[in-house]
Amino acid sequence: MTTRSEEEEKDTGRVEAFSDGVFAIAITLLVLEFKVPGLPSGASNGDLFQALAGLWPSLVAFLGSFAAILIMWINHHGLFRMIRRVDRPLLYANGFLLLLVTFVPFPTAVLAAYLGQAGERAAAAFYCGTFVFVSIAWQIFWAAASKRELLKKSVSDESVAGIWIAYRWGFVVYTAASLLALWNAAIGLCTCLSLWVLWTVLEYRAES
Amino acid sequence: MTTRSEEEEKDTGRVEAFSDGVFAIAITLLVLEFKVPGLPSGASNGDLFQALAGLWPSLVAFLGSFAAILIMWINHHGLFRMIRRVDRPLLYANGFLLLLVTFVPFPTAVLAAYLGQAGERAAAAFYCGTFVFVSIAWQIFWAAASKRELLKKSVSDESVAGIWIAYRWGFVVYTAASLLALWNAAIGLCTCLSLWVLWTVLEYRAES
Amino acid sequence: MTTRSEEEEKDTGRVEAFSDGVFAIAITLLVLEFKVPGLPSGASNGDLFQALAGLWPSLVAFLGSFAAILIMWINHHGLFRMIRRVDRPLLYANGFLLLLVTFVPFPTAVLAAYLGQAGERAAAAFYCGTFVFVSIAWQIFWAAASKRELLKKSVSDESVAGIWIAYRWGFVVYTAASLLALWNAAIGLCTCLSLWVLWTVLEYRAES
Amino acid sequence: MTTRSEEEEKDTGRVEAFSDGVFAIAITLLVLEFKVPGLPSGASNGDLFQALAGLWPSLVAFLGSFAAILIMWINHHGLFRMIRRVDRPLLYANGFLLLLVTFVPFPTAVLAAYLGQAGERAAAAFYCGTFVFVSIAWQIFWAAASKRELLKKSVSDESVAGIWIAYRWGFVVYTAASLLALWNAAIGLCTCLSLWVLWTVLEYRAES
Repeated sequence: MTTRSEEEEKDTGRVEAFSDGVFAIAITLLVLEFKVPGLPSGASNGDLFQALAGLWPSLVAFLGSFAAILIMWINHHGLFRMIRRVDRPLLYANGFLLLLVTFVPFPTAVLAAYLGQAGERAAAAFYCGTFVFVSIAWQIFWAAASKRELLKKSVSDESVAGIWIAYRWGFVVYTAASLLALWNAAIGLCTCLSLWVLWTVLEYRAES
Repeated sequence: MTTRSEEEEKDTGRVEAFSDGVFAIAITLLVLEFKVPGLPSGASNGDLFQALAGLWPSLVAFLGSFAAILIMWINHHGLFRMIRRVDRPLLYANGFLLLLVTFVPFPTAVLAAYLGQAGERAAAAFYCGTFVFVSIAWQIFWAAASKRELLKKSVSDESVAGIWIAYRWGFVVYTAASLLALWNAAIGLCTCLSLWVLWTVLEYRAES
Repeated sequence: MTTRSEEEEKDTGRVEAFSDGVFAIAITLLVLEFKVPGLPSGASNGDLFQALAGLWPSLVAFLGSFAAILIMWINHHGLFRMIRRVDRPLLYANGFLLLLVTFVPFPTAVLAAYLGQAGERAAAAFYCGTFVFVSIAWQIFWAAASKRELLKKSVSDESVAGIWIAYRWGFVVYTAASLLALWNAAIGLCTCLSLWVLWTVLEYRAES
Repeated sequence: MTTRSEEEEKDTGRVEAFSDGVFAIAITLLVLEFKVPGLPSGASNGDLFQALAGLWPSLVAFLGSFAAILIMWINHHGLFRMIRRVDRPLLYANGFLLLLVTFVPFPTAVLAAYLGQAGERAAAAFYCGTFVFVSIAWQIFWAAASKRELLKKSVSDESVAGIWIAYRWGFVVYTAASLLALWNAAIGLCTCLSLWVLWTVLEYRAES
């Protein structure tokens, strides 16, 4: 017989496993956005190198989205270390978060196709705008998860509040990035990027 | 040495893990149905925004199928909490269910391509019709699973009967939705949608 | 501290998990072989239904390969219940088996594209021929796994020999199917299918 | 209550599971690089066989990349048997490694498209060059993992040093392979291949 506490652990375990699967697949599908360049017959090796170098927008989009999904996975992983039990609302909030995670490859492909071309500001704004919704999904997730009956006893009120602050800042910065991208694609994208770097640094310091 | 009961648990564990993998992949492949819009060279940012807005049928199909697969996963998860042991017929019934889950991305792509165009009624009927087969697969699954020797002792006859009722209603509503879609695509799709909302609400209340 | 036996179990566990992942992904990728039919603008709902009905070769290929991969997964699952420990040769033999499992979606797509068209006999022979290699991979797997130091003590010599017989018959029947397909595609494919049905029935009876 | 050691094991477990997912998906996506050959209507069965035989570059690229990812997975698996605990830097180092693993299907597709054609030397150099970055990622991984506070007590300094040597040789050989490929595609690719064969043989002998 398994105890109630083991039952609970198995339960959060299956939600984590399903979520991990979705994160792992979404992050791996990003590569499909790279298209093999087609060259006219009789093209030289130099032509192929040049065509591959011309895929830099795909590389930028790939690296950005890979980093974004990886950070989200690490974050998800960290939050589930605080969560003791999963109830129905949290299951749906987690599902909404996964909806946005699985959507990320599409704005990534749009960005890869239009960066450095006419339409790049719209593509960058669409890309940054997706993360506005992502940050809303994280806030819904945290509203569902940060209830005393679901969290482990060892989680302090300060940790809960600190996460709220991080998610609210995320929302503000992504909204600003979307608006900036309408004016200049690179500046909008760098705003998103700087947030990811900042989060990584902050988490790093919190850990040590 | 592991006991017989641990052996059984490991066994249902592997079936759940494989099924979770299939659910997670099917739900993540849905995004591939979004196609990056191709614009004539020299198109403006406004043109790209307009082209992205024109993808609303893809968004509708994506959201619908994501919700459908997520609800099925939660349901599958809930049923396996009642199941103690997996025998051969249940393994095949589960396999037939997964067959239909992996098929969902195709009617989704057909719906995304034809919604709002000539042919939308056929696409919607094909989409709803897929769920008629899905509901048959759930009934076969439950016929294989709801045997006393496979269920946990704690599962009441009322729970077993309640699930039968839900699946039979599912079959009726999906059949009606398919027929309605032949006459009006939106009404057919909304019939499916209303079933998903209803199920979510009912499960919610059963939980609390 | 974990005991040696727990260590071993964790180890076969990770091989099973990785293999399950590959089986689950390969089986889910099969759906990508369905292509949304393109219709001339102004086509009617009847035209779309007709175009969808014209996809029957895709459906045949999808159903066949889904059944084949599912049976292989169930078989893999069954064999790992006999295996206590994984050594390096078995790891590579398992890798070679997974190589063929991941390849299955390609002959499936070829069959879907050419069934019912000129070239269908070549497509069917290529499809059946893939399973000749699959059955070789299973024999290599079983040669690596059926050693006394890897199997559980409870596995009888009769079980080991019975599995050898099944795999050798598989090789013979798939080779015959490939040759028959060169002469008539449907007969070749039905030969494969009858083997899958036979295996399912035999396993069923062995279980009860 | 779980003990600290169980907590740690669960933690490395989730990193392994996520990584396994990424490896499994990347290795399975390789098959998408095979394109169903399109034939003019009225083509014979012989034409289809010939077209399939003409896909040998796809087969070479598929087999090579499958072997490479499988060897990396086995290696990853082996290293995690030495690792007791995962800290933040190791999590990011593992993420960077996975970035390169998920990227592999793209150079594979480029190689499949250009092998045996004009541009094959550039494609082979791009392919080999990807593995230069892969070997850098393994070195970063090992720098992050091979710290006394993360490794199990049973891991000897000789094992740690031996792995460093293997990774440094990897870097040198891949760099040489990339340069050789610029001069002759086959020789560059065979250099990579010989490294994989060598590693497999060495590991084999180390085991027994």
